[in-house]
Amino acid sequence: MPLCTVTFIIEGSETRSVQVSRDMPLLEAARKAGVAIDAPCGGNGTCGKCRVRLLKGSLADDGPSRHIKPDDYAAGFRLACQSRVTGEAEALVPASALAYQTRIKIADLAVTRDREVYAAFRRELAGMGMGGDLGLEVLSFTLPPPDLGDAAADRERLLHKAAEYLAVDENALDLDLYALRKLPLLLRKSRFSLNCVIKSEGARKTILNVYDSAVSAGAENRAVPPPRMAGLAIDIGTTTVSMALIDLELGDIVAIGSAGNGQIRYGADVINRIIESGRPGGLERLHTAVTRECIEPLIERLCESAGINRDQIYRVAVAANTTMTHFFMGVPGEYIRLEPYIPAFFQSGALFARDLGLGVNPAAEVLVAPGIGSYVGGDITAGVFSSMIFKQTGPALLIDLGTNGELVFGSADFLMACACSAGPAFEGGDIGCGMRATDGAIEAVVIDGETMTPALTVVGADKPRGICGSGLIDLIAELFRAGIINAKGKFVREDAAERPRVVRDEYGLARYIAVFPEASGTGDEIALTEADIDNFIRAKGAIFSAVRTMLAAVDYPVDAIEAVFVAGGIGSGINMQSAIRIGMFPDLPLEKFHYIGNSSLMGAYAMVHSRQGAETVRDTARGITYLELSSHPGYMDEFVAACFLPHTDAALFAAGA
Amino acid sequence: MPLCTVTFIIEGSETRSVQVSRDMPLLEAARKAGVAIDAPCGGNGTCGKCRVRLLKGSLADDGPSRHIKPDDYAAGFRLACQSRVTGEAEALVPASALAYQTRIKIADLAVTRDREVYAAFRRELAGMGMGGDLGLEVLSFTLPPPDLGDAAADRERLLHKAAEYLAVDENALDLDLYALRKLPLLLRKSRFSLNCVIKSEGARKTILNVYDSAVSAGAENRAVPPPRMAGLAIDIGTTTVSMALIDLELGDIVAIGSAGNGQIRYGADVINRIIESGRPGGLERLHTAVTRECIEPLIERLCESAGINRDQIYRVAVAANTTMTHFFMGVPGEYIRLEPYIPAFFQSGALFARDLGLGVNPAAEVLVAPGIGSYVGGDITAGVFSSMIFKQTGPALLIDLGTNGELVFGSADFLMACACSAGPAFEGGDIGCGMRATDGAIEAVVIDGETMTPALTVVGADKPRGICGSGLIDLIAELFRAGIINAKGKFVREDAAERPRVVRDEYGLARYIAVFPEASGTGDEIALTEADIDNFIRAKGAIFSAVRTMLAAVDYPVDAIEAVFVAGGIGSGINMQSAIRIGMFPDLPLEKFHYIGNSSLMGAYAMVHSRQGAETVRDTARGITYLELSSHPGYMDEFVAACFLPHTDAALFAAGA
Repeated sequence: MPLCTVTFIIEGSETRSVQVSRDMPLLEAARKAGVAIDAPCGGNGTCGKCRVRLLKGSLADDGPSRHIKPDDYAAGFRLACQSRVTGEAEALVPASALAYQTRIKIADLAVTRDREVYAAFRRELAGMGMGGDLGLEVLSFTLPPPDLGDAAADRERLLHKAAEYLAVDENALDLDLYALRKLPLLLRKSRFSLNCVIKSEGARKTILNVYDSAVSAGAENRAVPPPRMAGLAIDIGTTTVSMALIDLELGDIVAIGSAGNGQIRYGADVINRIIESGRPGGLERLHTAVTRECIEPLIERLCESAGINRDQIYRVAVAANTTMTHFFMGVPGEYIRLEPYIPAFFQSGALFARDLGLGVNPAAEVLVAPGIGSYVGGDITAGVFSSMIFKQTGPALLIDLGTNGELVFGSADFLMACACSAGPAFEGGDIGCGMRATDGAIEAVVIDGETMTPALTVVGADKPRGICGSGLIDLIAELFRAGIINAKGKFVREDAAERPRVVRDEYGLARYIAVFPEASGTGDEIALTEADIDNFIRAKGAIFSAVRTMLAAVDYPVDAIEAVFVAGGIGSGINMQSAIRIGMFPDLPLEKFHYIGNSSLMGAYAMVHSRQGAETVRDTARGITYLELSSHPGYMDEFVAACFLPHTDAALFAAGA
Repeated sequence: MPLCTVTFIIEGSETRSVQVSRDMPLLEAARKAGVAIDAPCGGNGTCGKCRVRLLKGSLADDGPSRHIKPDDYAAGFRLACQSRVTGEAEALVPASALAYQTRIKIADLAVTRDREVYAAFRRELAGMGMGGDLGLEVLSFTLPPPDLGDAAADRERLLHKAAEYLAVDENALDLDLYALRKLPLLLRKSRFSLNCVIKSEGARKTILNVYDSAVSAGAENRAVPPPRMAGLAIDIGTTTVSMALIDLELGDIVAIGSAGNGQIRYGADVINRIIESGRPGGLERLHTAVTRECIEPLIERLCESAGINRDQIYRVAVAANTTMTHFFMGVPGEYIRLEPYIPAFFQSGALFARDLGLGVNPAAEVLVAPGIGSYVGGDITAGVFSSMIFKQTGPALLIDLGTNGELVFGSADFLMACACSAGPAFEGGDIGCGMRATDGAIEAVVIDGETMTPALTVVGADKPRGICGSGLIDLIAELFRAGIINAKGKFVREDAAERPRVVRDEYGLARYIAVFPEASGTGDEIALTEADIDNFIRAKGAIFSAVRTMLAAVDYPVDAIEAVFVAGGIGSGINMQSAIRIGMFPDLPLEKFHYIGNSSLMGAYAMVHSRQGAETVRDTARGITYLELSSHPGYMDEFVAACFLPHTDAALFAAGA
């Protein structure tokens, strides 16, 4: 078969060429070339994100479509997933079509509240006796230098001294391979004075790292910084990976950041990624996309930001949904999506960084938050811990709005969890102008009922570039409140009255323009179509019907809920009133709602910060009952009933209406 | 600096080009190109092994030399180490100039005695209660298949069943990451029937591997072979790496083989390699040369030969000299060669295959035989074990003739060890026609005193290609006995009487021709020069003077020695009479001598075969006193006195003379 050369010119970046066989989809050719074109729909032609521009050559496709208007088509725009290679071709990949795994964002701790939020959580943990129990310590030793009469090897020289100091048997001490490899040169450089990081496990102690402890008093007079010990909390979301670097001694967050999950180019949802993982080499691609391409650069940047070396990270905790956990560990997850939906594991055994090739200290322990179901993973069990729902005296609800929606209901007495296919709408997926809650995202909206003009709050106070989850909830609630859309999510006002905010395209599809091109950060309008609203209503309906089904399963009325914890990276906050108004959350007094942000990352933090914390997450997970909604009688009826604004049974939202 | 392109045409193999800076030695350019030119002298121009032929371009050098005669020089022959790049050049690398790390040799167990030798050793171990104590077992489980009502994950499903069967707590069980990665697909393929390899350590049990246990009874009717458990013993010699694959259940050797140590291109002795290891990237090069380029292909071939998969190897033991042990583990060894000669370690801690990237089961324990001195390494402590010298009631001597010579003297009451710089003569290094004891090596010689004609025994009954250690001992003993050379190793007969066996070249250097070109397997004569004899006499003198010095240190007479164990891969045997005659071994009754072959590999075997054996090697090592000869008073005098045939004090060899 003849090969065709396809060249990708990446906007603002390099140009890459690849030789592929004729008829290969352009999206696949891009992946082969290592060009991460975004394809949240998994290459089905439905999301329109993989729009590129053909500069030279030709492609086989079906002509103009919903996503490529005739004018744009004539100008060379194509959907990469719907175009096939026919010969030599050159395509421009605009920044908008790139999966955002390279966009690492390190938060400035001086201006975010993260440090205080975590400090408060740490105090709460301390109150529970958690923290300071890591069994890691730094000790300084000055060894007698060797001579011909004292020719003990470096390792034995160090262990002998350490055993003497610690008053333990030398056989109970070990030196990790990584530290052993550093030792000979370090000893000569430091003139046999060194700091050691020592880990205790029962009676066994292992030296994990060695540092020069000498403070050179000579002309240079450079003080050798004391070796800090760091930990790393990782939340692997389907869309976003968030990480916090932690000073293990103080428990303080020293850097925090996030990046898009590089796997997104294989699909926005876990199902498309599981399918990809089953293809030859697919599991390795997905593993690499999240580890080497995403976690590794984030480690690099976080360490750089905090002035910490990778080898100073001695403890890592990972919280992620079941599929992400599998791919992180390089374990096949294909049976997660096939009935009866069985993951390879819920709990993971003893794991170390070197087992996974993670770029931290090779002897660092890697703790993985346990999952309890195919669609209720370690991110949720971590969230159960950090929300402290497992300590509540009265029943509480935890709602995690990730790429899927997961719910936990219970208290110190019982806990049950379920997942619903809310889809990625809350993270900006499946929505034409949707985006994550990063700079330029509209996160809050108030609409003037008369003029239909929106007042927008934008993350980073930039020009708006799209709408994130919290903004969508507001926008739809406001469109509904102002009577611009009806309970079915359709635009209801007639032609003239709608303009200029509501317009219809040549296919008759209506959309609400929140931002006109001239005011937009992208130069394109930011609008919400009926299709977007449809997607969103299904998402919120999935959440609400899951709440109803779960409460019904244990025969609790809605009023019994004493607190609702809402988690997820859908914005810096969420307007609970709006969420109730559209029938997403149950109609409870607003003071019962608490937005707790990324509870998964916070749970991972607890696992890094405290051995006891990690144990508690594991034990708590074992006590959670998993409710499989898809096979639960009544769930589909609940879902259908919830796919209205606010609900087919308006009485449920009497107070909020 | 302008770069020059140098091309190497490797005889019988591919052509490789490299761009290097002007003035780089051609040998270095070859290394950069990945062409493994042999340089046992470390590139000092003394061994003559790196002879290549310049085909195009020119090189800077000093003209004809001892190794390159004027005719050969005119024909383009050059020493790669003594030639510098001056511009574009193309050189032919003959097979004779290639380091032999690619020459893997797998012994045919049907025709070697290895299997019986090891079986006898195993019986001896069994008598000491060693063996059968590995804590590894294979168990079969059939799991209940999951359904929507029983959605436990694969790992927990397996651990639950195993815990039930073994009547242990589920928390005391773990599944190794490697096995976890295999599990999901295997369970579906095997219809939930599987064999597990389980390792016990105290109360903890870990499943290291999983296999399909189903014997398909259908149309294909292929029987699934039961999962064998294998171990691997590795002896890393400076010159040769030997390995034995072991059936862990039976203790039987299932494959045995060897290959040249790929590090040889960085020097024949450890000193040159340590120097290379200190250069940028050098340690990694040396580590890779022995692991990826030598051990890995040997594992591949041994497994292939025995029909065992790499992942079935659960236990590895390595015995090697101190420097080789450092490079195998990727630990800097630079201080071994600098006074006061301190290695990074003698004992190594807990190590697993995945720590070292060794291509066997990632969870396989890697045991490293402990060293006791910079030049008395784990190969010797392993040999102390396998020779059973540590159980002797009367004093015995262990002499290991490797690339260096190491000696151990003692009994169950005490043990002392020393190393002497015997050099690589016993393995064919430093000798013009020297070679390892492989096919074509002359391993035994008897000379007719009258005609000077030798009767030769050749390994593999091939045409002779060179002389190995045992052949050299015989040849020199015979030359001396026949009065062809004198006590100083010089040819003594006058011109006419010498021919045709003894000839002198244009520089006046005499040589004894053992094989004329027409009878040789290489087409070149096989001859021994006075320089070769010099090198050999220094080697044997080093051994004998070490024996004398060590005995003197503990005030034992030679007669007190009850047994002499001679180890090393210098031939299938060694003529002890010849060795005594040249003053290499003390003059004791022949029945006291025992040739025990590769005692290092056999010690590694014991460590693989028995936990108790590995413990004993470690404990025994701790009890050995190291005698540093180089700083020992009297050693130099002993050495000088021993550099004669047989010795300056002929009375020492009154019986054997």
